[in-house]
Amino acid sequence: MIRAERRNDGVALLVLDRPAQRNALSLPMLEALRAALREAEDARCIVLAAEGPAFCAGHDMRELTEARSRPDGGREFFARTMALCGEVMRAVTEHPVPVIAAVEGIATAAGCQLVAACDMGIAAPGAKFCTPGVEIGLFCSTPAVALSRAVSRKAALEMLFTGRFVSAEEAARLGLVNRVEADPRIAALEMASRIVGRSGVAIRMGKAGFNRQCGLDLAAAYEAAATVMVENMMAADAEEGIGAFLGKRAPNWTDR
Amino acid sequence: MIRAERRNDGVALLVLDRPAQRNALSLPMLEALRAALREAEDARCIVLAAEGPAFCAGHDMRELTEARSRPDGGREFFARTMALCGEVMRAVTEHPVPVIAAVEGIATAAGCQLVAACDMGIAAPGAKFCTPGVEIGLFCSTPAVALSRAVSRKAALEMLFTGRFVSAEEAARLGLVNRVEADPRIAALEMASRIVGRSGVAIRMGKAGFNRQCGLDLAAAYEAAATVMVENMMAADAEEGIGAFLGKRAPNWTDR
Amino acid sequence: MIRAERRNDGVALLVLDRPAQRNALSLPMLEALRAALREAEDARCIVLAAEGPAFCAGHDMRELTEARSRPDGGREFFARTMALCGEVMRAVTEHPVPVIAAVEGIATAAGCQLVAACDMGIAAPGAKFCTPGVEIGLFCSTPAVALSRAVSRKAALEMLFTGRFVSAEEAARLGLVNRVEADPRIAALEMASRIVGRSGVAIRMGKAGFNRQCGLDLAAAYEAAATVMVENMMAADAEEGIGAFLGKRAPNWTDR
Repeated sequence: MIRAERRNDGVALLVLDRPAQRNALSLPMLEALRAALREAEDARCIVLAAEGPAFCAGHDMRELTEARSRPDGGREFFARTMALCGEVMRAVTEHPVPVIAAVEGIATAAGCQLVAACDMGIAAPGAKFCTPGVEIGLFCSTPAVALSRAVSRKAALEMLFTGRFVSAEEAARLGLVNRVEADPRIAALEMASRIVGRSGVAIRMGKAGFNRQCGLDLAAAYEAAATVMVENMMAADAEEGIGAFLGKRAPNWTDR
Repeated sequence: MIRAERRNDGVALLVLDRPAQRNALSLPMLEALRAALREAEDARCIVLAAEGPAFCAGHDMRELTEARSRPDGGREFFARTMALCGEVMRAVTEHPVPVIAAVEGIATAAGCQLVAACDMGIAAPGAKFCTPGVEIGLFCSTPAVALSRAVSRKAALEMLFTGRFVSAEEAARLGLVNRVEADPRIAALEMASRIVGRSGVAIRMGKAGFNRQCGLDLAAAYEAAATVMVENMMAADAEEGIGAFLGKRAPNWTDR
Repeated sequence: MIRAERRNDGVALLVLDRPAQRNALSLPMLEALRAALREAEDARCIVLAAEGPAFCAGHDMRELTEARSRPDGGREFFARTMALCGEVMRAVTEHPVPVIAAVEGIATAAGCQLVAACDMGIAAPGAKFCTPGVEIGLFCSTPAVALSRAVSRKAALEMLFTGRFVSAEEAARLGLVNRVEADPRIAALEMASRIVGRSGVAIRMGKAGFNRQCGLDLAAAYEAAATVMVENMMAADAEEGIGAFLGKRAPNWTDR
């Protein structure tokens, strides 16, 4: 379901690989993605891509519908699915290393959420984004969490209320992805290559610190970030990196 | 003062209709708008438009000035006006159904705030936006609440500190409106038509859930949104909508 | 280190003036900037500019490296530097009067943070912005605080993770500056001139109120802003400004 490939440079390429189901996030698919993200915790950077014409079509409607025949009408299954989905999305955003989405085809509902949850994103010219839950009587409430933290309020609400498709170009303008590239997977891997050439400890401390300061008031955010800076300064790699910079030589990272 | 029209499809068209006063938000006008918003709570979507060359010019300066002759120098009246204004603006943002602004002409001060407070907005090519309180010694502090939640910090501060006019095109780029259309009222009604063709219960649960998760930290936001998703899944319309989707037929909404 | 010039109109022009060190924020430089900001508390508006090819290159790496030879490996010095840096950045954002950055050349790391922390910013066509801490093993964690409050999440994270340069045009698109002008210092001084022609009390109350409502939930934000509006209405300048507006004459500010 998830094809995981660890490259020599430490980049983990995770590929959603259930193309016939448009990479729908069934419970097993969510579990596989959670597992793949966990296994990639010792990677240096993650690129998240997908096989087939759809990046990801969101939840598996067939699976959800089957659960309706249970005695509780599916409630427990729905709750489990949504909790796991939220856990996976948070595992992307809060992953110890950067996660870059490489989006070809459509990314809809929880699939659009997955892109929004990533740290960076690159879209193919033909990629399309949409939160169409309103079409099926199920508002994209969990996708809204990631979407409203990625784009402006009015842009998020229009996507959510109308369910209209947003083109790759518009997604870049809105901030849902960083840019449009002919081959997003190659572009994302190049971006990842650049990142993995740096000190892993600095990247990890930095990402965790970024997430921690988000949403804090300014005084608390600066206090939290200053603590991270001091710890980062005490790390061997900062000494090495700054020494290399001052000595005009290439740094030799130790990831400590 | 407010012309309210309920269309057959359930869209409430609310029109600010005090054009000679540039639709200024006097106390009676704010009360009329509050009443119109309440009456539209059983609508399926709201389009907010205005008569005349100004969408809305903000507070009624003549009315505020008259209150200065009171024994307290107007303080109580100002407090009542600002409290009511905030209540009306929140009634827009937190309205049970989507509110779309259709902006022709100028929207200044609390008029600009009204646009910022809406869920979506469409502007005529000649529409203009401005928070010019600094021109009259009265900083647009309450408009800033809505504005700073709609556009980037520097864009909001420039509008607030300089009072300069922002064109419709720029407003769209900044996120203050969604797009520019030759006839914004027709475009807003078309957008509303699309929305009212969906399950009302999903739209209502979705909007309330969106507002609830805003500003929460990521974990709390996902928890809140997951609860909404489960309740939405248990609603009759989600079963109908997903069933229709899987059966490749049109859904038959019951709004339950 | 900081050249301060008080113009007749009340604008304080603060110029980072350590061009040979690319205006790096050494401890003395941060202290000088803090002192200059304090002295400018009775100004009406601040323009922050810089001498030389770099607006500001961030922290002084040589100074930080020298502190490593101390018994504690520099920890106390780093903590002091980061605390002071955060204090200075907050002193910009929370300064009683508006602060406008006029950026020529490169603004990197804490230099980029300084631009992000300002209320407004104008960049020269050749200005460049970058948070390149990852190149030296020191993630730009404190710059991230200001950056993530100025631009979208994905834009901030790409700058932080890749360290790539952002052009002036892109910075304007992202919201890191307001616009690009051939001579940013002249453009910033013109913007400042416009601001200082207004009631100082309104500007000060407005800026403080803006910062207070940021990050509050909507109800609390409107409550806080309404209080500011009422106090502002009771100020002499609001009475004068509104009176002048209604009387179609120029206002005569008293700054009370």
